[in-house]
Amino acid sequence: MTARDLGLPARVPAPDLPDRVTIWEVGPRDGLQNEQAVIPVRTKLAFLGRLADAGLTTIEATSFVHPKWVPQLADAEQLLAGLNRRVGVRYPVLVPNERGLDRALAAGVEHVAIFASATETFAARNLNSTLDAQFAMFEPVVTRAVAAGLDVRAYVSMCFGDPWEGPVEPAAVVGVGQRLLAMGASQLSLGDTIGVATAGQVEALVGAFTAAGTSVDALAVHFHDTFGQALANTLTALRLGVSTVDSSAGGLGGCPYAESATGNLATEDLVWLLDGLGVETGVDLDALADTSAWLAEELGRPSPSRVVRALRG
Amino acid sequence: MTARDLGLPARVPAPDLPDRVTIWEVGPRDGLQNEQAVIPVRTKLAFLGRLADAGLTTIEATSFVHPKWVPQLADAEQLLAGLNRRVGVRYPVLVPNERGLDRALAAGVEHVAIFASATETFAARNLNSTLDAQFAMFEPVVTRAVAAGLDVRAYVSMCFGDPWEGPVEPAAVVGVGQRLLAMGASQLSLGDTIGVATAGQVEALVGAFTAAGTSVDALAVHFHDTFGQALANTLTALRLGVSTVDSSAGGLGGCPYAESATGNLATEDLVWLLDGLGVETGVDLDALADTSAWLAEELGRPSPSRVVRALRG
Repeated sequence: MTARDLGLPARVPAPDLPDRVTIWEVGPRDGLQNEQAVIPVRTKLAFLGRLADAGLTTIEATSFVHPKWVPQLADAEQLLAGLNRRVGVRYPVLVPNERGLDRALAAGVEHVAIFASATETFAARNLNSTLDAQFAMFEPVVTRAVAAGLDVRAYVSMCFGDPWEGPVEPAAVVGVGQRLLAMGASQLSLGDTIGVATAGQVEALVGAFTAAGTSVDALAVHFHDTFGQALANTLTALRLGVSTVDSSAGGLGGCPYAESATGNLATEDLVWLLDGLGVETGVDLDALADTSAWLAEELGRPSPSRVVRALRG
Repeated sequence: MTARDLGLPARVPAPDLPDRVTIWEVGPRDGLQNEQAVIPVRTKLAFLGRLADAGLTTIEATSFVHPKWVPQLADAEQLLAGLNRRVGVRYPVLVPNERGLDRALAAGVEHVAIFASATETFAARNLNSTLDAQFAMFEPVVTRAVAAGLDVRAYVSMCFGDPWEGPVEPAAVVGVGQRLLAMGASQLSLGDTIGVATAGQVEALVGAFTAAGTSVDALAVHFHDTFGQALANTLTALRLGVSTVDSSAGGLGGCPYAESATGNLATEDLVWLLDGLGVETGVDLDALADTSAWLAEELGRPSPSRVVRALRG
């Protein structure tokens, strides 16, 4: 007898929440790129199939970053060639630059994502760039992608705190985000890359965007659970009208046993919350937990998702 | 360079929150009673001293349950005899029955707590009792404690879901809670003992209490993180005016590596949230994380607190 057999979580709606939330599943890309193990492409394809079977409709499939930087995703072309694209499911891929976009276009993708920094220091450290140079690099990527009929999402990293600069001001994030939207991105994913944000910051940042004229519909949130705050921050964003939330099946990419844990919010923990609140996601929690338990076996370590451990541990 | 050195979490207040929250630290009792290891009394005393040094002002010290049931806390008399009681710090102890109250009175305690069930099934399984028999058992405990000038808190367990009954109705919990308050308890600790609650249930239960005439000041919340929901639920309760929150230093009592994880909310994860929101707790997060890292060494396993792992992992 599990909690699920007993009808848990109980469905008790709360006020001021969206009726429906789109879960942007990042496990196959953001999750697997942070795993030590290199996963066979057939396992990745099975994973993508099971995620779609579980009802996820936006599944970030892979990245066209240079294999030297992310060997875990060096099989991007092979993966997309073998992918059984389901009707009604989007499979965005990350493209770091024009070379990545070329590869994505050749592979026939319809949705791409770029990965920008909100801070000068992270732009320098991670992208070996500056904020101005970052915009110059992304401009042709977004322009060409939009011209080719692709949808473009922009990740904005370090939106709340930066490991070198400390707290990040909302105005700085709004400035970066609005430049990316002006280029042609359809959505910003506001990332708490080091997991330090708390609820007041979330309110301040979403409020700063809407005060500056950006619709809440153009915003998604991407929280990491490094300091345990991911779900509380997500709930705060939902109350402000945000209705796209990034998460990673099984908490993939965040390992509770390693210091380097990146701590992606686990999709199952998010679905537990949303099911309990009566917010529609289309996701079958049991099928998803089965999928993450299966992948944890493949990876040879337990899932960091609390829901997966509680239901399938 | 840690997140703390950089001034994180950033302090950004959110509306509709209490100015100050009382953290009811349950680690030495609820935490250690669920640990496999039996800890030497000198270690427990050092732990209690370090918790007070870190600024905690309510520290549930031990339990006068029969040692046959909880051998981990069989040293209750010895512990209290050796305890250096700090000025301004409360050291409540759990008393399961009149025999426990006799022992607590003999040990000179000033604050006691009783542990009730919201459901018939848990009363039968855990307390080998019924709800009516439970009230009959607690009545003389509370009456005598109050007559002796003691403050009495009542834990109400299984307030949201029960592992045999499934979802629990707010009306049932309000009925149990109000009987305990009528006996003379000064505060109810509403427990999500199996960690299944989500935010809508929290709103419904707190709302049901206030609609029935119970002040929010008589309510505390006690969430478990079994399904990852503890901090989101806590934030929801704070927004409703609840200002006493139970938590366990280092997440003690909840082990992420065991199926039997009880998953107490970690005090550090709670303090990170409250510090970020500018809510006063009096707790020094760094001193507390040091304490939990030290105790994790003593216990021979890493802390399940995400903040402790991120700062001291």
